[in-house]
Amino acid sequence: MTVTPVRYSERMETIAKRYFSYNEIHRTVSALAREILASGFEPDVTVAIGTGGFIPARILKTFLKKPILTVGVKLYNDDNQMGEGPKKVQWIDEVERKLRGKRVLLIDEVDDSRTTLAYCLRELLSHHPAEIGVAVLHCKDKAKCDQFPPEITRYWVGQHLQDIWVVYPWDAEDIDAHERNIQAMHLGAGSPASIPLA
Amino acid sequence: MTVTPVRYSERMETIAKRYFSYNEIHRTVSALAREILASGFEPDVTVAIGTGGFIPARILKTFLKKPILTVGVKLYNDDNQMGEGPKKVQWIDEVERKLRGKRVLLIDEVDDSRTTLAYCLRELLSHHPAEIGVAVLHCKDKAKCDQFPPEITRYWVGQHLQDIWVVYPWDAEDIDAHERNIQAMHLGAGSPASIPLA
Repeated sequence: MTVTPVRYSERMETIAKRYFSYNEIHRTVSALAREILASGFEPDVTVAIGTGGFIPARILKTFLKKPILTVGVKLYNDDNQMGEGPKKVQWIDEVERKLRGKRVLLIDEVDDSRTTLAYCLRELLSHHPAEIGVAVLHCKDKAKCDQFPPEITRYWVGQHLQDIWVVYPWDAEDIDAHERNIQAMHLGAGSPASIPLA
Repeated sequence: MTVTPVRYSERMETIAKRYFSYNEIHRTVSALAREILASGFEPDVTVAIGTGGFIPARILKTFLKKPILTVGVKLYNDDNQMGEGPKKVQWIDEVERKLRGKRVLLIDEVDDSRTTLAYCLRELLSHHPAEIGVAVLHCKDKAKCDQFPPEITRYWVGQHLQDIWVVYPWDAEDIDAHERNIQAMHLGAGSPASIPLA
């Protein structure tokens, strides 16, 4: 009697999620790095938004060879509910000295509602950097809850996605099951929603 | 006339290096997490040593579900030469409030000379945490240049390695070439030096 809903749930998961492998992420960061370098923007420092930006930022360092500062921002409560707004978990100490007059590249994994990115940009701009560029692995093409400050004119997106459920490899409790989900997705089990727009 | 030295160089690289895939790293972190959880040590917070500890720490968060603070420590100069000692690139602001009385798990990718780990442990201990445990993906079994303070009684190693050249996936300029090197290594192109001890 309980078999049908379980199967249904499994099928929903197959349809609704887009699984990324580490190597695919690595290739996306590599392409982002080439775009950033080709643009003529030369950051002095990368600022990674934690914890989603840690892995993209560390990979990007291989190509840009710039130091990484990190900021920790929490958009959700511990029970995974949206809080009243982003909260700082960790912020850069001696920010003034580190960012004033510097060219900063802010990096995160995904531009979803844009809330966290816009919040971080306003905070960082208050410390008078020379310029801030923004890079994300993925941008979900959807209505945004916030917008970038007008000072931000450089924005790089590794890949545009529909508003789907993105599953990053670092969130996998079983990386081998994650790989099998990727294989199943590539075999056509996914709906058009799992195909990136660009 | 130049063919022979190029081939020799390629062969040397095959022999001397141990390449790790992201998925292998992920499995090692998963096993580390199981050991840490089984030990009864329940950290309040993870402190990642940047930039090598960023990726292991982010993966570990999937299993331990604890916030990550980061510290940036630079052991080498920009020209990749050993400096006079570790230098702080970023340190935790409001450290006292965040670490005093807390159970801390310090994480880095490799215990090589032990210099960076020992330095960070002394710094963190000065802020009076309740306890600090240490976890690394890899420990090179070699003479160490420094030692852990006596307060440190919990130390988890994902894998012990000989004193070989470890190549992490996040350092790959070409992740597909990195994968081919892993395949070649598994096909037996590597010497015994590339086989982990445990």
